Amino acid sequence: MESLWQIEETRFDPTQKTIHSQETVFTIGNGYFGTRGSFEEGYPHATPATLLFGVFDSVPIAKEELANTPDWTVIQLFVNGERFRLDTGTILTYQRNLQLQNGVLQRTVHWESPSGMRIHVTTERFASLADEHTGIIRYSVTSDAAQDQQTIEVSLRASINTAQGNYNLMHFETLNQGHDQNIVWLQSETKQTHVQLCQTMTFSTNAPGYQKTLIDSDIAPAIHLTGTLAPGTTLTAEKIVTMYTSRDTDLPLQTTLEHHQRLLEGNTQHTNYEQLLTQNKQAWQQFWEQADILIEGDKQAQIGVRYSIYQLRISASIHDNRYSVAAKGLTGSGYRGHIFHDTEVFMLPFYTYVLPDIARNLLLYRYHLLPAAREKATHNGYEGAQYPWESTLNGEEVTPTSIIHPETGEVVPVLNGFIELHITASIAYAVWEYWRVTGDDAFIKDYGAEILLSTALFWSSRAEKQTELDSYEITNVIGPDEWHEYVHNNAHTNYMARHNIRIALDTLNWLRTTAPERAHALEQQLHLTKQQLAQMHEVQAKLHIPQNSHTGLFEQFEGFFQLRPLDQTQYAGRKDSYQGILGVEEVQHYQIIKQADVLMMMTMMNQDFDQNTRQINWNYYFPITDHDYGSSLTPALHAIIACELGHVEEAHKLLLKGVLVDLENSRGNTPEGIHLACAGAVWQAIVSGFAGLRVTEQGYTTRPVYPQNWQRIAFRFQNKGETVQIDLRRD
Amino acid sequence: MESLWQIEETRFDPTQKTIHSQETVFTIGNGYFGTRGSFEEGYPHATPATLLFGVFDSVPIAKEELANTPDWTVIQLFVNGERFRLDTGTILTYQRNLQLQNGVLQRTVHWESPSGMRIHVTTERFASLADEHTGIIRYSVTSDAAQDQQTIEVSLRASINTAQGNYNLMHFETLNQGHDQNIVWLQSETKQTHVQLCQTMTFSTNAPGYQKTLIDSDIAPAIHLTGTLAPGTTLTAEKIVTMYTSRDTDLPLQTTLEHHQRLLEGNTQHTNYEQLLTQNKQAWQQFWEQADILIEGDKQAQIGVRYSIYQLRISASIHDNRYSVAAKGLTGSGYRGHIFHDTEVFMLPFYTYVLPDIARNLLLYRYHLLPAAREKATHNGYEGAQYPWESTLNGEEVTPTSIIHPETGEVVPVLNGFIELHITASIAYAVWEYWRVTGDDAFIKDYGAEILLSTALFWSSRAEKQTELDSYEITNVIGPDEWHEYVHNNAHTNYMARHNIRIALDTLNWLRTTAPERAHALEQQLHLTKQQLAQMHEVQAKLHIPQNSHTGLFEQFEGFFQLRPLDQTQYAGRKDSYQGILGVEEVQHYQIIKQADVLMMMTMMNQDFDQNTRQINWNYYFPITDHDYGSSLTPALHAIIACELGHVEEAHKLLLKGVLVDLENSRGNTPEGIHLACAGAVWQAIVSGFAGLRVTEQGYTTRPVYPQNWQRIAFRFQNKGETVQIDLRRD
Repeated sequence: MESLWQIEETRFDPTQKTIHSQETVFTIGNGYFGTRGSFEEGYPHATPATLLFGVFDSVPIAKEELANTPDWTVIQLFVNGERFRLDTGTILTYQRNLQLQNGVLQRTVHWESPSGMRIHVTTERFASLADEHTGIIRYSVTSDAAQDQQTIEVSLRASINTAQGNYNLMHFETLNQGHDQNIVWLQSETKQTHVQLCQTMTFSTNAPGYQKTLIDSDIAPAIHLTGTLAPGTTLTAEKIVTMYTSRDTDLPLQTTLEHHQRLLEGNTQHTNYEQLLTQNKQAWQQFWEQADILIEGDKQAQIGVRYSIYQLRISASIHDNRYSVAAKGLTGSGYRGHIFHDTEVFMLPFYTYVLPDIARNLLLYRYHLLPAAREKATHNGYEGAQYPWESTLNGEEVTPTSIIHPETGEVVPVLNGFIELHITASIAYAVWEYWRVTGDDAFIKDYGAEILLSTALFWSSRAEKQTELDSYEITNVIGPDEWHEYVHNNAHTNYMARHNIRIALDTLNWLRTTAPERAHALEQQLHLTKQQLAQMHEVQAKLHIPQNSHTGLFEQFEGFFQLRPLDQTQYAGRKDSYQGILGVEEVQHYQIIKQADVLMMMTMMNQDFDQNTRQINWNYYFPITDHDYGSSLTPALHAIIACELGHVEEAHKLLLKGVLVDLENSRGNTPEGIHLACAGAVWQAIVSGFAGLRVTEQGYTTRPVYPQNWQRIAFRFQNKGETVQIDLRRD
Repeated sequence: MESLWQIEETRFDPTQKTIHSQETVFTIGNGYFGTRGSFEEGYPHATPATLLFGVFDSVPIAKEELANTPDWTVIQLFVNGERFRLDTGTILTYQRNLQLQNGVLQRTVHWESPSGMRIHVTTERFASLADEHTGIIRYSVTSDAAQDQQTIEVSLRASINTAQGNYNLMHFETLNQGHDQNIVWLQSETKQTHVQLCQTMTFSTNAPGYQKTLIDSDIAPAIHLTGTLAPGTTLTAEKIVTMYTSRDTDLPLQTTLEHHQRLLEGNTQHTNYEQLLTQNKQAWQQFWEQADILIEGDKQAQIGVRYSIYQLRISASIHDNRYSVAAKGLTGSGYRGHIFHDTEVFMLPFYTYVLPDIARNLLLYRYHLLPAAREKATHNGYEGAQYPWESTLNGEEVTPTSIIHPETGEVVPVLNGFIELHITASIAYAVWEYWRVTGDDAFIKDYGAEILLSTALFWSSRAEKQTELDSYEITNVIGPDEWHEYVHNNAHTNYMARHNIRIALDTLNWLRTTAPERAHALEQQLHLTKQQLAQMHEVQAKLHIPQNSHTGLFEQFEGFFQLRPLDQTQYAGRKDSYQGILGVEEVQHYQIIKQADVLMMMTMMNQDFDQNTRQINWNYYFPITDHDYGSSLTPALHAIIACELGHVEEAHKLLLKGVLVDLENSRGNTPEGIHLACAGAVWQAIVSGFAGLRVTEQGYTTRPVYPQNWQRIAFRFQNKGETVQIDLRRD
């Protein structure tokens, strides 16, 4: 079954554009850091990156971004003075694969140099899941035995490269550099935010007769191994790099050095490597025991869902609740490492069901952001807490207010940070779902209730009373479908806001019963007067939700049905979104939407709706959604509702669209990082869609549907502290 | 007289902000490249830069910028493993000076290491004026004899640092790297524009017993010298770096290597260094024989004017007419290396009078831009050629259309690229002045006439006929005073536009007489029909210039006199411009101006005005100009008119304000580069102001005025191929 655990590549072409998307695809990581799959030897135009969880620096316009650190992966090989690089000489064989079961990236190349020397090169790298601060590369070079080759001179040069940036913008500068016996160290710092990073490096071989040279340099500290290689023999060397930042410890240099020394203690380096690899494999094995989903009969879906799970794991820290999972995780510079509702709506179900400790961390991140969210609400004239559309560490709104188009130079205003409100309800929703599935009462008591009530207060003050109609409304927002701006009574926003208030009130009642002191303290702290609570009750009871009471059809927002229909057949073969084609202004006049909006709400609030209501809304909204160039969030999410409606083959198509978004770079933007919300939606599509898992107060139910070729769906999940094994087989 | 040729610094403090402005001040260069005065050993937050004449890369918003190249100046020193850096240990003495007479930057430091070792370090660097492709550093370290010091281990590490950018944005990436015997080479390329750069480096010493190690690296290729140093002895090593780009040759690597090998041929390295230094000194001596201005009695003015002349020399290439002199020359990232009217109005007089070959190059640059200028005119619905407000290599308008405020995130529209038109007349004016002074008929025939006629055509079509008034006007412009936008009939613009048309028509007449075939060809090429020429005649005759015919007072633009006066006494002690204080919108309502506008025009067109007219306009405009935080262009330029009016001490104050703008970083923005237009204005203030030089058809006149302490003003200039010696002494 080996091949169901691998992402493979069999061709290298430095001129082809896939080099950048494949760098993203072959990212290794462990939640503490992520390292893109660029090559050890380096190529012009390559975009290597190692991003650390929560390590930001300032940047114009986008405010803050995960700062690309000095590249720890560099190893250059020279044979008889000729440089090993695949854009010269001849590639005889090439193979690269990412082993999902243990996070190891391997490459084997058979190469003939311009002068005719033939060598085999094998590299193997991983970011240890057992030791988050450590990255390891094993590099092997074999002189070809099949020819009449002579003994060759080999020089291997391992270094850390500080000449790195995000889209060429450098963030780190060297403070100091040196070596301590065999360990080379580099101490650097982000230029604006002054986060200190220490990296240590060793590079060693057991092969006899190799000379080791340590090269101190602020810019590219290095270790060179030089010697000779007889035909048919192999040189294997291991590079170990350890990293700590001032976010981890007050003494990052000392801590890193001590950590690295511990790794070396009493071991030859090969034992070292094997030991580190074994520990890493054990950690991954433990993870997969909890997290794997087995799909028998569909290789593409099987590998794809494992790849999605892999990505979700390497992007989230198990030890740090000061930051969350970014839209692109730690895999690229896209969206600058900012946190969106992607985390709570799309990814959090995976963590909640599979890794509840991480889910708790991600919600604690939101808890830590409450002061800033309160400030945002106050600043806008509202009560409670309003979460930013995009956030980093301190919870300030970091959505740019406008961007200058890189090609036309035109100013494009960005409204999301001002009026895309639904994220606040998404966070409350995620808290509630976490509680429902984990039963973590302590979290709710200490943190969750405060989030729920603070956000409910926001909605209660944000809703505007319509005296004549005896109702409340929420005007001038952007819903999940971001192609329509300043809309009134967006069904999604209002429905989720109402839900937010309801679960907050339920939680307060629960708290009054189970922890009356905490309830009292919270009421004091949040000024939850009787009047305030009455207002919350009234708003949730009277908040207008635009839905036809006879048919059950929601109107995405007031007036949506009056917009012009769009004849999509005119745009067959398009390579851009409808917004890109029609323009930001023009698209607003059409019933064409970027992503699931009503249908997303119906997926999230699944239990509220019957099949008829589902079907009529599906019939209306599914055809008018831009499935190809709208949002990557949508296809796999749509699969859930398609499963419920029995459109199994359609659901399967949607799932594969989600699965392949990065593996085939189908939207063209994989170079900027993985589509992590899509990975979360893929997981949800299997579990909530095809397996039909529903967790209720009484336990759980499944209602599997199988695409034609599927034989079996099996996985585990955590429910109130217990592991549940699901194993569903086609009759 | 040694001290009248030096810029000195006697104190080092890495934490103080002057480190960045002093990097600008201590720039060395030769017109091919400029290298900021950062320190060899490097400091966090330092901003080293080496900018090459005309080597650009793309950048968001600002479109193109001079691309900071891999830093060739790095040399680190370790003594007994301790790193020489002035932010640790104790500085016992410190002295740095820039020798203006030969462009050599020297530093001597006596330093005690944290562990108590004492050493003397002396560095000396220059960008050879005799060999534009070569930069040289001599580095000496002496072990202190006065102590009971032991022999110490010394390691000197010279490298080229690719981890460099403009404001942290990296532009170069390595293509390849290697060494050829003792020469280390680095081949890199700009990321977007694909300009290839090759740098070669040698690092050597005559001291016996030192081990040399060449370190290949894509990121920081290096040469290390290691050995021991007995107390009281000195190690001296020389780093030589040679650079060529693909703008210079099709084979930059080969050319650079050959060039470097020639430098080394048949020489020990000390002879090398002395020889290179001697050649450089000879080249500078030749230059100063032509360019020096002697001011006896005023040390500050003497050094300041020499420093201005030094800056003008090191920023202009004598061998390249595809680019011009940027607002900041090659000294910093400010204004991104873009070319403004600064060159033609403020700097070109220096080149025209002193280095006419360079002046000719700068005008040829504008000639090469004619196709793009024609396109800009056509695009805007006009005839002829409209020059861009900012330009780089291809003549496209590169003024950003808007910028996003780095702090507030607000979008600030930038109108200059659309409506600041007067640069087109400035270029025509510069052509005419060049001709007047040099008598270079061939240039006018082959190039200048085409510039003059093409720009005249633009004005002729841009002027709008006012039928009722039987006049022409030019509406909706920005004049030199950029604080007032969309103004009508800006006196400066209209006056210079009229001049442009007049000199174009005069030139055509001259051409018809002296080179009728060329005249005919031009008429054909530019479609100069009789009708067109009649129109040009009519526009120049009837173009409205807002001037009171009784008093001679110009109105800066229509309605300026109706604006509110500003009570400047309210703003005593301010640290910002009036625009900064009042805001971009509000300042437009006031009679407060950024820089000389009417007075600039009157300085340029000096011969047109009598003393009364000068005086009344001076009285009106001088007091309402922001001399401290408006434009740096103004003070020294105002000195000329002040001299003419006999306000000699006021003129002297204005001159010193210009002289000190960078030496004292009086505007706070010297870190971003030198104020080169101000340097040009300083030169003009001495020559046209204090010496009162006027070149006429008949020859030249002087009319010196002397500030109290001045005894003598002496200089040379070129007039129609002959060198004229001026030597003026106070009676």
